[in-house]
Amino acid sequence: MDQRYEHYTAMVEQWLAGRIGPGDEDTDGLRQVMAYSLMAGGKRVRPVLCLEFARICGGDPVKALPVACAVEMLHTYSLIHDDLPCMDDSDIRRGRPSSHKRFGQTAAVLAGDCLQAEAFAAVCDAPIGQAEKYRCCRILSRAAGAEGICGGQYMDLKAGPATAEKLAKTDRLKTAALMAAACAMGAAAAGAEEDAVSGAYRFGQALGMAFQCRDDILDNDGFCALLGREKCLEMTQEYTRAALEGLDGFEDTGFLRELTGRLSGRHA
Amino acid sequence: MDQRYEHYTAMVEQWLAGRIGPGDEDTDGLRQVMAYSLMAGGKRVRPVLCLEFARICGGDPVKALPVACAVEMLHTYSLIHDDLPCMDDSDIRRGRPSSHKRFGQTAAVLAGDCLQAEAFAAVCDAPIGQAEKYRCCRILSRAAGAEGICGGQYMDLKAGPATAEKLAKTDRLKTAALMAAACAMGAAAAGAEEDAVSGAYRFGQALGMAFQCRDDILDNDGFCALLGREKCLEMTQEYTRAALEGLDGFEDTGFLRELTGRLSGRHA
Repeated sequence: MDQRYEHYTAMVEQWLAGRIGPGDEDTDGLRQVMAYSLMAGGKRVRPVLCLEFARICGGDPVKALPVACAVEMLHTYSLIHDDLPCMDDSDIRRGRPSSHKRFGQTAAVLAGDCLQAEAFAAVCDAPIGQAEKYRCCRILSRAAGAEGICGGQYMDLKAGPATAEKLAKTDRLKTAALMAAACAMGAAAAGAEEDAVSGAYRFGQALGMAFQCRDDILDNDGFCALLGREKCLEMTQEYTRAALEGLDGFEDTGFLRELTGRLSGRHA
Repeated sequence: MDQRYEHYTAMVEQWLAGRIGPGDEDTDGLRQVMAYSLMAGGKRVRPVLCLEFARICGGDPVKALPVACAVEMLHTYSLIHDDLPCMDDSDIRRGRPSSHKRFGQTAAVLAGDCLQAEAFAAVCDAPIGQAEKYRCCRILSRAAGAEGICGGQYMDLKAGPATAEKLAKTDRLKTAALMAAACAMGAAAAGAEEDAVSGAYRFGQALGMAFQCRDDILDNDGFCALLGREKCLEMTQEYTRAALEGLDGFEDTGFLRELTGRLSGRHA
């Protein structure tokens, strides 16, 4: 799978670099702040999932590329805002100063705001049908709003006793919703039936939960801190199994099965 | 025109109140922060423009209502973020404490972020065709991004010598782009031809510039401070004339002509 993964990430890097590149001189500075975080060398898991779902649903990954990159732009905006002093107050992101440390809070807030808007603009510029673009916008807006990452971030920051139920919901909104959206948008961009789009969504949701549980184990945080390492490992396996079962409705799923194994830690 | 204006704003208030109302208990607090700013009794100029353009383009304002309210949600998000300490640092908005003064910066940033996402979700939930919703999303995303309010806010906050050219561009991006989008989205929601959508956009852009020039005169700011009151009055009249001329391509424009007069100060 490595060759295809690299092929997809090369497509993503190239498209994002071209998209966010120099505009007019008046707003160039803003674009540079956006590019600093967007081109910081993430693993591009979400766009890769999106492109692969477009492919297995019979679409052309090249046509789905702006849609895949939109998910990465939305993800990057959420990281920039999460790092702000009034949120998680993180000075470092991917081994470099976070956006507000490098450019100040004003620029960081604006760059995040702008990346969210430009994510929707990217979907709207994809060379796919209008109905497909509408479906992708709908999926993305839900993953971004009160029932998605904003709601999840709100729950995460709100004081209150941690219960397994609250923790699972926080992870579902904050982490799993966007991975689910990435998969569903790939299927939708390819013009897949509603059943396949829902199937892709459920796979991405289970994968996102497995991914988060594994993260909790690595950081001794979240479920691992609350329920213990054994129980958290068990949950990771359960979510991973659910994800893999979710792929049974699709064909040509070798790449996604291998990727699921890696992201949930079996091969880590 | 007062009766129709009141009818439209009543529709908007009711739809927004229902939309933003109680969700589940976990994210209710976030919804309350959003509602505090969204239901603060603005004049609803942008949604009114949107609804009226839907009507004169042969559409049903009731069906365009979620689209009109999406523009107001996007406008409200921009006000919440503009008021932040790292932006304009305003403690008061519409006679009440601004969002971050009332709820803290964390909640204010999140509520703004969420309102932007929910604006796109509102467009996607409108009872109009998928092609129409796609067009509305495209127009909204452009008005929100680097070539719209984010770019305008960036120019506004960036240090540098004020020239008439830079000032005009800042106003065009920060203020006029969203008023233009409101008009164009109304036309697009009604399924109007591309020519009519562009015509609505140009009208809204000229109206937005007239509106901003009038604001500059009232506050002795912007163009008024730079070029003097006389010149700024002249510019207001020029933009107003351009806006009114832009209506010549439409029928049944009495309401819009009267509204243009009010917003540009002729009847103020």
